[in-house]
Amino acid sequence: MDILVIGSVAFDSVETPFGRGDDVLGGSATYFSTSASFFTGVQLVAVVGEDFPDEPRQFLTSRGVDLAGLQTRPGKTFRWKGRYGYDLNEAQTLETHLNVFETFHPELPESYRQAKFVFLANIDPELQLEVLQQVEKPKLIACDTMNFWIDGKRDALIRTLEHVDILVINEAEVRQLADEANLVKASRAVLAMGPKTLVVKRGEYGVLVFTEHSIFSAPAYPLEEVFDPTGAGDTFAGGFMGYLAATNNLSDETIRKATVFGSVMASFTVEDFSLDRLRKLTWTEIEDRFRRFQTLTAFEGL
Amino acid sequence: MDILVIGSVAFDSVETPFGRGDDVLGGSATYFSTSASFFTGVQLVAVVGEDFPDEPRQFLTSRGVDLAGLQTRPGKTFRWKGRYGYDLNEAQTLETHLNVFETFHPELPESYRQAKFVFLANIDPELQLEVLQQVEKPKLIACDTMNFWIDGKRDALIRTLEHVDILVINEAEVRQLADEANLVKASRAVLAMGPKTLVVKRGEYGVLVFTEHSIFSAPAYPLEEVFDPTGAGDTFAGGFMGYLAATNNLSDETIRKATVFGSVMASFTVEDFSLDRLRKLTWTEIEDRFRRFQTLTAFEGL
Repeated sequence: MDILVIGSVAFDSVETPFGRGDDVLGGSATYFSTSASFFTGVQLVAVVGEDFPDEPRQFLTSRGVDLAGLQTRPGKTFRWKGRYGYDLNEAQTLETHLNVFETFHPELPESYRQAKFVFLANIDPELQLEVLQQVEKPKLIACDTMNFWIDGKRDALIRTLEHVDILVINEAEVRQLADEANLVKASRAVLAMGPKTLVVKRGEYGVLVFTEHSIFSAPAYPLEEVFDPTGAGDTFAGGFMGYLAATNNLSDETIRKATVFGSVMASFTVEDFSLDRLRKLTWTEIEDRFRRFQTLTAFEGL
Repeated sequence: MDILVIGSVAFDSVETPFGRGDDVLGGSATYFSTSASFFTGVQLVAVVGEDFPDEPRQFLTSRGVDLAGLQTRPGKTFRWKGRYGYDLNEAQTLETHLNVFETFHPELPESYRQAKFVFLANIDPELQLEVLQQVEKPKLIACDTMNFWIDGKRDALIRTLEHVDILVINEAEVRQLADEANLVKASRAVLAMGPKTLVVKRGEYGVLVFTEHSIFSAPAYPLEEVFDPTGAGDTFAGGFMGYLAATNNLSDETIRKATVFGSVMASFTVEDFSLDRLRKLTWTEIEDRFRRFQTLTAFEGL
């Protein structure tokens, strides 16, 4: 099954203690679709400016990403500038230039409207709703968001969440959305807003997946070199959704395995700037690291 | 096999967002030995003042803890006062009164000197060395420490570490000891100081166990009610060492299972103030929660 994703395609300027990248390819939809493309086809919905070059289009197309839904509009592509300190869990945003994103409204090509798996990356919840109105009968809707929308567009976000099957956000956002400090209680409160599954991202500490009757904990892979955490969350979501769509199965067991595949993909992304690590990644490396996650977490039962 | 532990026996005054306890039983050796006592016998080395009452002595004795090495000295028992905010990972120390601990020197009773399993809880590394000089031929030495000693008694600590098989400290301490921000690199550097195994405690995020050739990740149990994290680390160490001593086995597989037992024990301690939860804990509850850790982390392999 292909996945439809709406999100940003952007140029990022990133500083970390280990180096910097200027105007490198980024954006939630870019990371998501590149990661998901290792598992399944992707239909991308986003907007870029007239300054957007051919190379990334060719790269995404070569990965099997359908760009029929990528609008090109007069003006410049979305740009984000950020910095990480030694605590790579949190980015400090230095500049955000929405540019063509400011007036963006998603228009789904006819060929996208039958999409069964939909990922609403972190954008204005009103745009997320516009996408849902154009999709005919999705089987699974997953969604990301951020503090900015939880705070500023709470009502629209709550309306979106009523349609969402799986919410994928970080732990601070879970606490903020539920207004509750205890993560387990906060997660229960978020599940009551609509999603049947809540994936809580905790940066270098991994992921917790809450459903009504189960909790699954997956670690992040302990890495000796973390160059740039940008895109780790979207890369996780791409691997997670990619595996679910490829298997077309939503059992608890499949969701756990998808979580590990998402963690595997994220562990590669942070090893280099931009999408550079994903560009040279092979399926053999993915399987090898999946097995390392098994070794990392294995212990004998009683 | 019995375990010899040296550490503090104290009275704690603790404030958390969920309540407070004044002058309640605490101390690293108290938490450690109570926790370990579910697995094996414990020989305790510590000092208390003349104000120390009978009840905790009777409690510890009833749990199979040998108090022959508990000195009673003129003066008052060690007292600690601290506060936790909603971030229960970090205590703010409000007051520390060393009292009788100020002039304490461990003197091991003859019956302790054959101890095969030794845990040096977080005390002055010079006192840790004094204990090691009095133990004849231990099979396993494990050790805890803190930022105060890493900073203030680094040379003595380094000398202690040369004798230590397993170091059990938190992630900030690992980074501080190695002077390295990346946790994997820092852990490699700490292993080069002597310990063959490094257990990195990460509070509500669980534990990472590093050996030369392997990394094991265990989550903390996600709890709806965390009342008081005081003693969680020492309770972890008690369960961890308790299982190792009970099985008298130091294989990688046993260390992993010991790590989960340690995490199980810590998950109970934080559910109530002081040692109140451990006082009423049963072996059936321990096994039940161990199985919940299995469910929490299980996923299908490739």
